Amino acid sequence: MPYEVIDNKKMYYEIHGEGEAIVFLNGIMMSTASWVPFLNLLSRDYKVVLVDLLDQGRSDKADVFYTQDMHVDMLNKLLIKLSIDKFNLLGISYGGEVAMLYALKYQERLNSLILSNTTAYTNKIMKHIGDSWEFAASLYDTTNFMKVTLPYIYSQKFYEENFQWINERIKLFKTAFTKEWYDGFRRAVKSADDLNILERLNEIKVPTLIISSELDVITPISYQKEIKNRIENSRWVEIKDAGHASMYEKPNEFSLAVLGFLKTLGYDVRIL
Amino acid sequence: MPYEVIDNKKMYYEIHGEGEAIVFLNGIMMSTASWVPFLNLLSRDYKVVLVDLLDQGRSDKADVFYTQDMHVDMLNKLLIKLSIDKFNLLGISYGGEVAMLYALKYQERLNSLILSNTTAYTNKIMKHIGDSWEFAASLYDTTNFMKVTLPYIYSQKFYEENFQWINERIKLFKTAFTKEWYDGFRRAVKSADDLNILERLNEIKVPTLIISSELDVITPISYQKEIKNRIENSRWVEIKDAGHASMYEKPNEFSLAVLGFLKTLGYDVRIL
Amino acid sequence: MPYEVIDNKKMYYEIHGEGEAIVFLNGIMMSTASWVPFLNLLSRDYKVVLVDLLDQGRSDKADVFYTQDMHVDMLNKLLIKLSIDKFNLLGISYGGEVAMLYALKYQERLNSLILSNTTAYTNKIMKHIGDSWEFAASLYDTTNFMKVTLPYIYSQKFYEENFQWINERIKLFKTAFTKEWYDGFRRAVKSADDLNILERLNEIKVPTLIISSELDVITPISYQKEIKNRIENSRWVEIKDAGHASMYEKPNEFSLAVLGFLKTLGYDVRIL
Amino acid sequence: MPYEVIDNKKMYYEIHGEGEAIVFLNGIMMSTASWVPFLNLLSRDYKVVLVDLLDQGRSDKADVFYTQDMHVDMLNKLLIKLSIDKFNLLGISYGGEVAMLYALKYQERLNSLILSNTTAYTNKIMKHIGDSWEFAASLYDTTNFMKVTLPYIYSQKFYEENFQWINERIKLFKTAFTKEWYDGFRRAVKSADDLNILERLNEIKVPTLIISSELDVITPISYQKEIKNRIENSRWVEIKDAGHASMYEKPNEFSLAVLGFLKTLGYDVRIL
Repeated sequence: MPYEVIDNKKMYYEIHGEGEAIVFLNGIMMSTASWVPFLNLLSRDYKVVLVDLLDQGRSDKADVFYTQDMHVDMLNKLLIKLSIDKFNLLGISYGGEVAMLYALKYQERLNSLILSNTTAYTNKIMKHIGDSWEFAASLYDTTNFMKVTLPYIYSQKFYEENFQWINERIKLFKTAFTKEWYDGFRRAVKSADDLNILERLNEIKVPTLIISSELDVITPISYQKEIKNRIENSRWVEIKDAGHASMYEKPNEFSLAVLGFLKTLGYDVRIL
Repeated sequence: MPYEVIDNKKMYYEIHGEGEAIVFLNGIMMSTASWVPFLNLLSRDYKVVLVDLLDQGRSDKADVFYTQDMHVDMLNKLLIKLSIDKFNLLGISYGGEVAMLYALKYQERLNSLILSNTTAYTNKIMKHIGDSWEFAASLYDTTNFMKVTLPYIYSQKFYEENFQWINERIKLFKTAFTKEWYDGFRRAVKSADDLNILERLNEIKVPTLIISSELDVITPISYQKEIKNRIENSRWVEIKDAGHASMYEKPNEFSLAVLGFLKTLGYDVRIL
Repeated sequence: MPYEVIDNKKMYYEIHGEGEAIVFLNGIMMSTASWVPFLNLLSRDYKVVLVDLLDQGRSDKADVFYTQDMHVDMLNKLLIKLSIDKFNLLGISYGGEVAMLYALKYQERLNSLILSNTTAYTNKIMKHIGDSWEFAASLYDTTNFMKVTLPYIYSQKFYEENFQWINERIKLFKTAFTKEWYDGFRRAVKSADDLNILERLNEIKVPTLIISSELDVITPISYQKEIKNRIENSRWVEIKDAGHASMYEKPNEFSLAVLGFLKTLGYDVRIL
Repeated sequence: MPYEVIDNKKMYYEIHGEGEAIVFLNGIMMSTASWVPFLNLLSRDYKVVLVDLLDQGRSDKADVFYTQDMHVDMLNKLLIKLSIDKFNLLGISYGGEVAMLYALKYQERLNSLILSNTTAYTNKIMKHIGDSWEFAASLYDTTNFMKVTLPYIYSQKFYEENFQWINERIKLFKTAFTKEWYDGFRRAVKSADDLNILERLNEIKVPTLIISSELDVITPISYQKEIKNRIENSRWVEIKDAGHASMYEKPNEFSLAVLGFLKTLGYDVRIL
């Protein structure tokens, strides 16, 4: 199993395919396993590098509380060990926050940045939502934890059309979400508590794609617009009829945006 | 103190002002006390009738679980006792659901119906949100209960600008929200579980105002549009920059909509 | 017929009802006659003062080109002659521009300001649209003039549902729109060419209502938001399913907003 | 110069690059020349087939009025002559209408369909807009023609930021838009007058991409949603901050959508 020891912790990663690298950073409840359905498509032309951050998936748990900066440095050390020197960095939600922090520190290593449904600032309502998630996690009760968290993550439309799948997922995670998982989740939530890099986004100069969703209630369009306006070299698309978890609700449109962006990198079509 | 005994339960109500009656039905976490800031304005020309439904405010608690139909019949009996025969019925969120059910059963008693940020159908996501609220209430812990519920109720913008007020409110409710209150809240949540009167809305023939909010994530614009399209004799306005609790976030715009609607009742300005 | 001579020009006005005055300023293609369907409702509690600005309706035509400042001063002189000292000023589109300019010069005479579907800045696209309207007017051909102008004024939805009415209106105006009318319209279009008072809107301190429409393509929501954000003491509502001519498309919702605003003036409901 | 004679008319086309074919159908005021800035990027992996429909660009003018069905059959004959048997068909606005009609008649020849800012039904407001364009064209006066048409085509934001470019374009087209061009434009406008294939869209079974723009006022989001809902095998993205001419306003986002779609064809990522 592909692990590297970084700062005395085992970090789990997977590499699929050959070509220019895309490094994927998961949302807070996701893991490398979440990307399985995308691998055939994404690894056709690219070296897909999946990573579980500390406290995610099969990576080790942290011993103490931390901020997202820790992930940035551990990720960087991991990629150096893997000799992945120049790559495209994609992050979803929590992973997008880490990706922006990474770009602020190590952007010379990036070809491009892809930010899906994320925020550069943990605002007041996100703090309370985060608190409620952390609280729900602290009870180690998966059914209630899922009911506290999922309505923020999926759209009303998706919920309505896929309620059975959602309920099956809740059952499924009853075994996957152990006490250790919940404690990791709680640390992860807390690690984003003080994020506020809005004023620094203009330092990001690499080509950036912003993927937002029409029905995202936690990182809504207005927040995506802020990111768009502050990163000069950015492109912005919206996935229709999807909530926060655009990758789950509209996986084909999500892939379309990612591959479309990568396939146009290096070209700047100018009409004016 | 103004109580009437209805079906062996004390129902609390208040009457302010003289004139045509407006009966106010509270949202699930509200009570007659929520309307105090509006009384000067609303009671100037109208008889304002505030009502705590069973399990709300100063009314008695229920002994058993119930559906919202119980509120409809108790409300009707109360209003008959008070000789309020013909009136305007305003309901917010949960209260709006009761108001629509009332209209479906007793619309001959209504001059008009005002529906603020409500739904005719407890959809799948609302079920999970309701479950999470019911669960949070079952723990009798106000701080966490509020963090589970409030982010659905207020907009991101309001939260950002009024975080101190929100946190003070959480402290304030630590004493107000007793075990009895929480148990009542839980019954109220459950009473809406099976609401689905979408297909019956076309039976409502009284003039109806639909008040929706731009940033409402729990009963969003798309749901208000459904209500609008199904009630023929309806008018629809949107309060900008407000979330689900439009009455709290934009009390003046809320009052404007209510009074504007009532002051134009009986007129139908036709250009065509 | 009620005329006053102002600056050697006859200005037509009408007064209906008694009470606090509301002065109505027409949109560019409107006249006092446009308000007839609203009179019963609006004059019940108010003194409705309808005014045709120069080059509108039954007022005289101008001899030369002018800016909207001319309307401001002529309006002021007219109202002084009529002893209307303290009033509410409502303007639609072009009339709203004049109303804002009036407020910037004479706001001590205002109780309140109501701005419907207007702009504080004639932006570049409005300049070209204005040019195309002026050009179409210069041909004195009503059918083509209407086809150039009306699609900006009504929403797609309204057009679809009321196409016969629209076509009848085009026929109707073939006689009403004389060469003199068209020349007046052309001067009016040009008078707004250089309007840009965005930076001065913060000087307006009287209570202000902003009425915007969901489907307005000429003064869209984003422009209404600019006005809202710059006038401190303002309230903002949106009429759903309506285009630029909200007063024509949704006359009841329009009336609701106007009367609701006036009936809540002097009250400031504060929850916080 | 690459022409083929189809039905006694010369049709102009260009072929760039090798690989799977993408056939591009222009919007009504466009021509094969409009695609020059995109060629480097798009022809890297694909055989780009640009086509001027009759009355467009360097193709012959029609002798008589026609409907869009004529384009469909001429295009089909041209592609057969060119031995382009299986291809991706992209159409913008007017070209999108022709593309849908093509798919309804010859979809066995298509790998996929890409519809940008188009409509399946010439609605009542489009009829009047079309009439106003046809009228403006009939005067052979480019400045006024452009002022009648361009404000529908570009967004307020784009106009504001690129006014000089727009005005230079108007000058540029003074020579390009000859009497013959205008007469062709007029026939093209009329050829779409009776388009209404909404009810037939469900017959389209090939993978379809719908590209819509946030600020499109002529074929707005609500119309794109109709197309999306009726073509089963479709994906839908929205380009932010762009008007009807998304290809001009956001050429990189447009390319991203097109290439992203083509690069994911044949994959269906399923999470559920």
